[in-house]
Amino acid sequence: MSKFLQKPVTPVTVGKKSIGQLTDAMAETGFQGRKLGESVQIWADMLREENITIMMGLSGAMVPAGMRKIIAWMIRERMIDVLVSSGAQLFHDVHEALGNYHWKGSAHVDDEELLDESVDRMYDVFGEEQKFRKTDRWVQGIIEKLELERPVSSREFIGLLGKELLALKAEDSIVGEAARAGVPVFCPALADSSIGYSFVMARRGWKDGKQGRRLLRTDKRFIVVDNIADADETVQIAERAKMTGVVYIGGGVPKNFIQQTELLNLILGVEMPGHEYAVQYTTDAPHWGGLSGCTFEEAVSWGKIGRRAKTAQVFVDATIALPIVAHALYDNALEIARKRKKPAFDWGNGELKLTYG
Amino acid sequence: MSKFLQKPVTPVTVGKKSIGQLTDAMAETGFQGRKLGESVQIWADMLREENITIMMGLSGAMVPAGMRKIIAWMIRERMIDVLVSSGAQLFHDVHEALGNYHWKGSAHVDDEELLDESVDRMYDVFGEEQKFRKTDRWVQGIIEKLELERPVSSREFIGLLGKELLALKAEDSIVGEAARAGVPVFCPALADSSIGYSFVMARRGWKDGKQGRRLLRTDKRFIVVDNIADADETVQIAERAKMTGVVYIGGGVPKNFIQQTELLNLILGVEMPGHEYAVQYTTDAPHWGGLSGCTFEEAVSWGKIGRRAKTAQVFVDATIALPIVAHALYDNALEIARKRKKPAFDWGNGELKLTYG
Amino acid sequence: MSKFLQKPVTPVTVGKKSIGQLTDAMAETGFQGRKLGESVQIWADMLREENITIMMGLSGAMVPAGMRKIIAWMIRERMIDVLVSSGAQLFHDVHEALGNYHWKGSAHVDDEELLDESVDRMYDVFGEEQKFRKTDRWVQGIIEKLELERPVSSREFIGLLGKELLALKAEDSIVGEAARAGVPVFCPALADSSIGYSFVMARRGWKDGKQGRRLLRTDKRFIVVDNIADADETVQIAERAKMTGVVYIGGGVPKNFIQQTELLNLILGVEMPGHEYAVQYTTDAPHWGGLSGCTFEEAVSWGKIGRRAKTAQVFVDATIALPIVAHALYDNALEIARKRKKPAFDWGNGELKLTYG
Amino acid sequence: MSKFLQKPVTPVTVGKKSIGQLTDAMAETGFQGRKLGESVQIWADMLREENITIMMGLSGAMVPAGMRKIIAWMIRERMIDVLVSSGAQLFHDVHEALGNYHWKGSAHVDDEELLDESVDRMYDVFGEEQKFRKTDRWVQGIIEKLELERPVSSREFIGLLGKELLALKAEDSIVGEAARAGVPVFCPALADSSIGYSFVMARRGWKDGKQGRRLLRTDKRFIVVDNIADADETVQIAERAKMTGVVYIGGGVPKNFIQQTELLNLILGVEMPGHEYAVQYTTDAPHWGGLSGCTFEEAVSWGKIGRRAKTAQVFVDATIALPIVAHALYDNALEIARKRKKPAFDWGNGELKLTYG
Repeated sequence: MSKFLQKPVTPVTVGKKSIGQLTDAMAETGFQGRKLGESVQIWADMLREENITIMMGLSGAMVPAGMRKIIAWMIRERMIDVLVSSGAQLFHDVHEALGNYHWKGSAHVDDEELLDESVDRMYDVFGEEQKFRKTDRWVQGIIEKLELERPVSSREFIGLLGKELLALKAEDSIVGEAARAGVPVFCPALADSSIGYSFVMARRGWKDGKQGRRLLRTDKRFIVVDNIADADETVQIAERAKMTGVVYIGGGVPKNFIQQTELLNLILGVEMPGHEYAVQYTTDAPHWGGLSGCTFEEAVSWGKIGRRAKTAQVFVDATIALPIVAHALYDNALEIARKRKKPAFDWGNGELKLTYG
Repeated sequence: MSKFLQKPVTPVTVGKKSIGQLTDAMAETGFQGRKLGESVQIWADMLREENITIMMGLSGAMVPAGMRKIIAWMIRERMIDVLVSSGAQLFHDVHEALGNYHWKGSAHVDDEELLDESVDRMYDVFGEEQKFRKTDRWVQGIIEKLELERPVSSREFIGLLGKELLALKAEDSIVGEAARAGVPVFCPALADSSIGYSFVMARRGWKDGKQGRRLLRTDKRFIVVDNIADADETVQIAERAKMTGVVYIGGGVPKNFIQQTELLNLILGVEMPGHEYAVQYTTDAPHWGGLSGCTFEEAVSWGKIGRRAKTAQVFVDATIALPIVAHALYDNALEIARKRKKPAFDWGNGELKLTYG
Repeated sequence: MSKFLQKPVTPVTVGKKSIGQLTDAMAETGFQGRKLGESVQIWADMLREENITIMMGLSGAMVPAGMRKIIAWMIRERMIDVLVSSGAQLFHDVHEALGNYHWKGSAHVDDEELLDESVDRMYDVFGEEQKFRKTDRWVQGIIEKLELERPVSSREFIGLLGKELLALKAEDSIVGEAARAGVPVFCPALADSSIGYSFVMARRGWKDGKQGRRLLRTDKRFIVVDNIADADETVQIAERAKMTGVVYIGGGVPKNFIQQTELLNLILGVEMPGHEYAVQYTTDAPHWGGLSGCTFEEAVSWGKIGRRAKTAQVFVDATIALPIVAHALYDNALEIARKRKKPAFDWGNGELKLTYG
Repeated sequence: MSKFLQKPVTPVTVGKKSIGQLTDAMAETGFQGRKLGESVQIWADMLREENITIMMGLSGAMVPAGMRKIIAWMIRERMIDVLVSSGAQLFHDVHEALGNYHWKGSAHVDDEELLDESVDRMYDVFGEEQKFRKTDRWVQGIIEKLELERPVSSREFIGLLGKELLALKAEDSIVGEAARAGVPVFCPALADSSIGYSFVMARRGWKDGKQGRRLLRTDKRFIVVDNIADADETVQIAERAKMTGVVYIGGGVPKNFIQQTELLNLILGVEMPGHEYAVQYTTDAPHWGGLSGCTFEEAVSWGKIGRRAKTAQVFVDATIALPIVAHALYDNALEIARKRKKPAFDWGNGELKLTYG
């Protein structure tokens, strides 16, 4: 018999199963169902490693689509140790944390009518423009509280946002739970989001619907987000982590920002093995040539992913993958996650101290 | 508050859940996760209808990918009443029913090496060329047993295949379970499959590796599949069913063949309401303009889908959707399916008698 | 320098260019633009071969989308020698050949309103239901003219349709030009289309809006399409062609039906090299595991495509690819096509005689 | 006749055509071919407006894929007035401007072997790791020349890069031509790219393969990119432009950053009409719910796109669209572009003065 024929596909039988049992069964099938099953097993394997730092890249409108508490749970249960996110994600998380909602809508609707009613559409989810503006102002208020003698990294700022939310007793918030759990959250394109708007509003002295004194270049007060510091810090995480695993929800800047941590270390002369575990859920495809959809094999050529890394790239909408994968991890890996040694991050004066415990 | 803001998105919480509870929770979110959840609810609603005939269109290499027992279960538990399938699906089902396997493989492999070893690849699933040929010959043997005084419809032929498999005590076979359950199986493009090959082999008198006497046009023996009869019969099903629901796994000929049953009736002068329930799991997209990916809204313009139909089109690989949806139906709708009145089909001399009971 | 670095990407400069010059420039770039450019060059290379038979598989709603005259031109200029098509394609071609139109529409429209006006939507193209029905009846009339003492293959029937259209002086018709040029057209799923409806209508004796005497099984008149004969005939083409090249517009049954010609020959014991040139334009993707989107590399494992075949799979909507590729062939390969030795098909009593001249 | 039937689809005929004539013909067809044709016409209409500022969002690995000179040409001929880009794009542009190449490669290759040879893969394009590092150091050198008493916006820094390239007599460089033409280039996620690496290297005092004195928080020297300033400046462009048009190559941060300029103005209390022309070339899809693939209709609900805007979203790989669209604009709109009144940007002390002339 050919060496290629090692293990048969096992057809899934239907019966009473936990979600974790189902994804294990799917791992013995083919195509993307198999990949989804394998991704859960690889994630569980990551959690079993002695000293590993797990970084998640998060993009897409996951919070409006109801995925907020899943990410918050993953942070709380330390299924991940570091989060790199798009800004919109964090804005919508803060919005719900302040008691607001997103709404079940429809993609088959007259968008001009929505405009007339100040309803914003995200495919089949609706939001309220006026409430979004209130959240903008709340964020602006936090910015204005800061004593800004120097630029602030996105990690520092989001950490402060988290503490403010915890002070308001917010629950199940991504930003809040991260602050509670000591999970750093980076947003390398913070300017490209509603939170970025709030920074612009603060710089322009916007108040009570009117623009005030604009921050001048000669002012010694800084309302500046230092994303280069974020790059520096994430590179330090990869340097000091001993071993890294990555999970990408979608692609975009968060995926690239985490992928590049290995590369930047290589450039800086540090020997790096590449990320040793890697999972991605994406609706993109490799043949368009972009970073979001590229395979982990391609990443091996760059040294971003290790030669012997365990990887699963799953082509699927994250709103399908996240609920299933989270519950499969709940069924199959909760105890493992709770017992694992987790990295703690001490940022000091700019030099990271990373310890497992 | 705007009329567009009726019901908030409910973020999914992580905890102990049955698969059916999870898909119900997903139905309260956004994007394709929501659609997947809604599709289960719509399928369950179909099963609650008094007199409904549920037709499934099945395409893609679902059997090699381990989905065979799920479809067989759906037939056995009468989650569906009629199956329209691609030929490859049925061939691979027969292949496994005869005791063969498909194998876990990889998409990152040297295909010339596979060719050297007579291993056939279907993305990340492998098959054995020589064993496929044995199955071809077994099917040819069934064809040659027939007294073919007239062309045979694909439904008749697949019904015979099913009986042969049951005689061999095959279990969990799509074709076999359909024969047992009285579920008609149509294959409108049977010539375009390995089963079609077996018909050609029979026509050419192929035996022991050699070609024999070729069937001549003047012969009175017919080795012909009459797919026009299949079209006629599926139209009769739609005519007599009172109410129809449809489930599409992928698109292709099976989807179109079922969609057109309403249309052909309209052309033939029968008042038709359109299918009143419709679910599709597809990786295609509407903007390419083809039938496989078109929306159910588009189908309303043709009269194929009812104006008030309950529909959910889910953009997802069926190897992800089928295991989840089947188990959610198991959790949420098994009793409903078992108690429902099912259609029985008496094909008579060409005029269908359809009764519910 | 690494052996992997042989030829630089050449950035495209903007200036006065023929379409053929542009696709040649694109062949020196990356991603799908490069593949599109390469596909034109491979097609031109095919046309340069001494004795080759070029088979095109055609699916998707290309005719409603305005691609009809391009396909007719490809047939007339013998850019292809054999066509395998979906039925809908041929129906819509006949519809336009009879003087009807498809209409520029919109995908953002109320489909119930279209239903009220008997307007059928195909994404952003509209059709007129009542005119479609007239075409159905015209086709039915052709069917009823036949003396059907035996089943008719789709190739025979479409050939007859073509002659009828030529008698009406139809121009630029796919079916008509094929009849004129001696290019056989196969439709392996003819029952799955409006033309299939016309066969059902003929079998039911439908006339003047009423159903007549239904064809009985005991009747000696056959209104049956013999697609097994089509399978047999296409296999014979591949057997006798010396060399074959394939072009797929989309995937579906037409792609598989042509791919399998090599395989079926292998099963029948004929040594086959696989298709030696292969081009596909598709919006599908390999990772879904289906035949429509699978790579030509995968097809090598089956023996469908030759080990050393020149291939290009281009991920693009065919309504973009066809106009560009046709004009690039016009610019770069028209003389080559006109001078090439073309296969002629003599179907005799069932044994094909294929000659180049 | 129904009001929905206004203009027939005009089948494309094959013959001698300029590229601009071909895209005009495609605009009379269906599906994405039609959208591609319409996108050229809408772009040409934009260029005909009296006082309009055209902003392009550019993402994906367009430069490695050979699209660099096309973008440079669009800047030089003022087919666009403002560019928002991913950082990778600009890095690879600088890389080629310094005399380096990208290489024609293959997606079917052993990535570990590439790693061994320090060859980096981007789908079917290869790059040289060691040469990339040289470019990194060149960029670091530019950073270190700056007297950094305050953070620098990405626009300022890219402007400086452009001047350096012009001093080296670089031709056909995106960054260089933008500097020459006075077209501002923004990179809202500059930290997420090789250029971001160079900033980190500069902060760490990296020299001759060794890390030097790390920039301390108490230092008064800033090596910080101020993307909030970029947000402020792009908002000012939208405020002062009178009318805006947008062209998106891909999605990601560049698309969102331009879309949000309207929204941020609304929040700041400025009456905004939304962008009045909008074109996108994307391989994403609306049903995944993300910003990259969302429709312009959805954007109307937010006020980002005007109610009466002329829009075309084309689902196609940009490496196919860009060469065709650029040449069609060359054929159909070059004179229009040359004669139009172009915006000039005077950034002053932070308050933009925008004039047309």
